[in-house]
Amino acid sequence: MESQASMAPTPRALPYYVAFSQLLGLTVVAMTGAWLGLYRGGIAWESALQFNVHPLCMVIGLVFLQGDALLVYRVFRNEAKRATKILHGLLHVFAFIIALVGLVAVFDYHRKKGYPDLYSLHSWCGILVFVLYFAQWLVGFSFFLFPGASFSLRTRYRPLHIFFGAAIFLLSVGTALLGLKEALLFKLGTQYSTFEPEGVLANILGLLLASFAVAVVYILTRSDWKRPPQAEEQALSMDFKTLTEGDSPSSQ
Amino acid sequence: MESQASMAPTPRALPYYVAFSQLLGLTVVAMTGAWLGLYRGGIAWESALQFNVHPLCMVIGLVFLQGDALLVYRVFRNEAKRATKILHGLLHVFAFIIALVGLVAVFDYHRKKGYPDLYSLHSWCGILVFVLYFAQWLVGFSFFLFPGASFSLRTRYRPLHIFFGAAIFLLSVGTALLGLKEALLFKLGTQYSTFEPEGVLANILGLLLASFAVAVVYILTRSDWKRPPQAEEQALSMDFKTLTEGDSPSSQ
Repeated sequence: MESQASMAPTPRALPYYVAFSQLLGLTVVAMTGAWLGLYRGGIAWESALQFNVHPLCMVIGLVFLQGDALLVYRVFRNEAKRATKILHGLLHVFAFIIALVGLVAVFDYHRKKGYPDLYSLHSWCGILVFVLYFAQWLVGFSFFLFPGASFSLRTRYRPLHIFFGAAIFLLSVGTALLGLKEALLFKLGTQYSTFEPEGVLANILGLLLASFAVAVVYILTRSDWKRPPQAEEQALSMDFKTLTEGDSPSSQ
Repeated sequence: MESQASMAPTPRALPYYVAFSQLLGLTVVAMTGAWLGLYRGGIAWESALQFNVHPLCMVIGLVFLQGDALLVYRVFRNEAKRATKILHGLLHVFAFIIALVGLVAVFDYHRKKGYPDLYSLHSWCGILVFVLYFAQWLVGFSFFLFPGASFSLRTRYRPLHIFFGAAIFLLSVGTALLGLKEALLFKLGTQYSTFEPEGVLANILGLLLASFAVAVVYILTRSDWKRPPQAEEQALSMDFKTLTEGDSPSSQ
């Protein structure tokens, strides 16, 4: 159990790491836009450019916003738990809606062009991530925001929710890398090996995507940066501990 | 601080999860071999088949063995810490040597064929992973096995070593997925979209690679499965705590 009191000071280095992660995330979004604008003709819904809606929406939704949703509890350390939870849930809703637009864009584009769907590793991973993301949101909502779940159930589910949240985020980034690679090889083919500017830009974008993932998960997993429990939560958890002392799982 | 005594019993579910991760890992290695044997003509050093040495070595070294090296402290819970450390270090050395053979194979193959090197996102990620892996091994060796580093320095470096170990492992798996995708698109091209058996097999291999990574990192990060400190370590850390009480970082 943490021993910090409520209104604990923010760890000194945390804001710099958060700022750095945001810089990386925004650079990734801007660079995806630049790549699509400079080398893929930009974005539109009613033309061949509809495809380009897909990578942009996925990077904004399932990379940037999903990553930021994971950081909410590290950034808002002294706000009411319920408000922070709602923000966490809402960011995931926005991410989900934007990703849904991106998904519709690519299926609609394939349908218009007569291309087959869901044959590649990128698409298999993508569908898996999307379904897991939706399931995790539903389960998270019913355990943590819906008033039914008991304190003991929440305590037991929390580590699983955090682990699968991070895993789904990393799978999303991995899927984005596969998609980027696919888009490059489809268009550039053997030209990719001549260090075409588009290839180099996209490679750098890939490394930045991976760096954003590393930065977010580092902030998330650093144990001394975890959100300190607030006065009322601590009281509640002490009550619970007293009630169940003896058969409660070791809280490490 | 953990409160378990030494010779603590192994958590009930842990062996099943470890067995499942090994089943996944071995399936991944076998399936990589099957893919190369069935669809790529098998493996040899002195012919065009030299390329095939690369994916097999990388999957055995930087995926399977690297993953297993991370699990050593969860599996050998009551053995002497030093013996477990040496096993951890040795598994990483084997992984590194096998990966080095895989790396030489692809550079040598490119040289013989006159193909350019290091232009793709896969190759950039691969070189990055390889350099980070080597650096992490060197730093880990000098902090934890070489007798020079103080207890306080080890304690401070340990969480970073664990985080970067997991990050490098996940980057390795991500790089393998990018390589698999590259190999498929280079050979199958538009045939990939007709659900060719090779494409389907490789997609399943990709999903299993990702599942192995999730299983290993799950076992690694579950806090109640961490290795309990042994009697002599506990005594040492208590001494240290007594000496530094007051300015030691919260161990949470």
